[in-house]
Amino acid sequence: MLIISKDEIKKVYTMKECMQAVKDAFSLFSQGKVKAPLRTQIKNEEGTGSYLCMPAYCKEYDASCVKVLNMFPENIQKGIPTINAQVLIMNTETGTVDGLLDGNYTTQLRTGAASGIAFKLLAKKNCAIGAVIGTGGQAATQLEAMIVAKDLREVRVSDLDFERAKKFVETMKSSLSEYSTDIIAVKSANEAIDDADVIITVTSSKKPVFDETRVKEGATISGVGSYQTDMQEIPPKLLRRASKIYFDSEEAVLSEAGDLLIPLENKEITKENFMGDIGQVINHEIVGRESDEEIIFFETVGIAAQDLMTSKSIFDKVQTKT
Amino acid sequence: MLIISKDEIKKVYTMKECMQAVKDAFSLFSQGKVKAPLRTQIKNEEGTGSYLCMPAYCKEYDASCVKVLNMFPENIQKGIPTINAQVLIMNTETGTVDGLLDGNYTTQLRTGAASGIAFKLLAKKNCAIGAVIGTGGQAATQLEAMIVAKDLREVRVSDLDFERAKKFVETMKSSLSEYSTDIIAVKSANEAIDDADVIITVTSSKKPVFDETRVKEGATISGVGSYQTDMQEIPPKLLRRASKIYFDSEEAVLSEAGDLLIPLENKEITKENFMGDIGQVINHEIVGRESDEEIIFFETVGIAAQDLMTSKSIFDKVQTKT
Repeated sequence: MLIISKDEIKKVYTMKECMQAVKDAFSLFSQGKVKAPLRTQIKNEEGTGSYLCMPAYCKEYDASCVKVLNMFPENIQKGIPTINAQVLIMNTETGTVDGLLDGNYTTQLRTGAASGIAFKLLAKKNCAIGAVIGTGGQAATQLEAMIVAKDLREVRVSDLDFERAKKFVETMKSSLSEYSTDIIAVKSANEAIDDADVIITVTSSKKPVFDETRVKEGATISGVGSYQTDMQEIPPKLLRRASKIYFDSEEAVLSEAGDLLIPLENKEITKENFMGDIGQVINHEIVGRESDEEIIFFETVGIAAQDLMTSKSIFDKVQTKT
Repeated sequence: MLIISKDEIKKVYTMKECMQAVKDAFSLFSQGKVKAPLRTQIKNEEGTGSYLCMPAYCKEYDASCVKVLNMFPENIQKGIPTINAQVLIMNTETGTVDGLLDGNYTTQLRTGAASGIAFKLLAKKNCAIGAVIGTGGQAATQLEAMIVAKDLREVRVSDLDFERAKKFVETMKSSLSEYSTDIIAVKSANEAIDDADVIITVTSSKKPVFDETRVKEGATISGVGSYQTDMQEIPPKLLRRASKIYFDSEEAVLSEAGDLLIPLENKEITKENFMGDIGQVINHEIVGRESDEEIIFFETVGIAAQDLMTSKSIFDKVQTKT
């Protein structure tokens, strides 16, 4: 069995490759070609942790995996990641378990790649300025995917804690030094999004994190952080202003993401501008952007197909190299 | 993360220890202290394989695991095991994935240990002769558990293929050389059970594998092989003759095991002698054997609690030794 660490993945696998895998994932998902039973969840008795188990299979991608992901929010006080994940890769001919991948990094990659694919497909052709709001565990791959997707002059990064934003930017400048994009820390989310063409929100906020009037025409926004029903990063007014709203999976988003559920519940928005899943855009079933003036919003909570295609393509790449 | 192979398990972990873990598993299961959601199953599109995923958690045992088990019957033609399994062990304080165990061997151990515990609790005090019918992948640990549970003079082993039985016995004589029990290959199941005090059936048969009239008074039989609704090893007449019938989990057995389902369906037996789960015997909620004349039957299909306690106790032992 191949044991594949984060370092090993970093050595052989690029964000560009992950974006291709996630594009395939969205496409096959929308074709109904991915089998992914409802994930099982066990909560521990103390109420301090949850164990999630997510199997998935796709014949067309020749892939079968199980992702195990455990959430223990109190880990933060112990200096341990709050989310711990591993992915097992199975041989589709024999059922043997052939690989074990660092599931934290695989999750970060595929979550970033979702925003990357959204920008590639839905953003204006020419984008110069990006904004990333939030600098937690998922932010690094979001920033990287944004830069890979669009040839940006500048990305502005903000966090509630400016010192943390500055530290994050220092680290990212060095890890993304191959790109010519300027990465700068700014003091507020509004400063970050001012004049931005592509925007990512990746916080755990329970209230909107920016002023929607600062979002310019033609911007594309990817909402990443709101993966629970009480989380909300995006101002409902922006959703109303958006010409088109897309999802990784409308079904998943409408059962998990406060970003949409809260304003729907409050009747601040309707489903009128809900276009459907991004896989349907890839499969040419629904239209994408139609003018440079449209504001487009994409919400992603993550689907099992992303884990499946990402881990399979990582596994194949590592196997080829070793 | 600790990667624990079959060889490593063999080096540090004994069947006796596994029987203790499985006894704890049955006890805690019957107390309702084991959380195990319905396992997920994905069948591949060709219909040649199934992927099973079985998470389990028990606060009282300080254990959380996921067993992944894939069944590909056609592997037999490729010289690969038809069942491939792995177990991930999670830290219950933090949710980190701390261990990966060979799931095939863990499954074999816990399946053998179930019969061992059944004999320890339900067989007559003095037993001299054992019989094992079937010499497939699960047979070795069944034989070992039988010998660990009862101080036997002799165990007779049969298989449809006598040559295979002889080969199995040769291997087992060497691996169980520390025990003084005589292990001999015999030509038929009836020859094996003649005068036997403890009997294990571990075949994939679809019709009863022995003549019930050859079963002597006071015998204890463990039915292991019938884990699907169309599999049947045990003659219904033996079930009628049995004074008491026990299960690892009555609920699991009555949804999976042809041994009980077929004769119930045919009205060859009633539930009159169904006593309940062996964990209830351990917990002193129901009686076990009450005389040396009773024939007692135990049916096991395997429950997630066995995997949980076995893999946790293996993990703890390996961790202590390294």
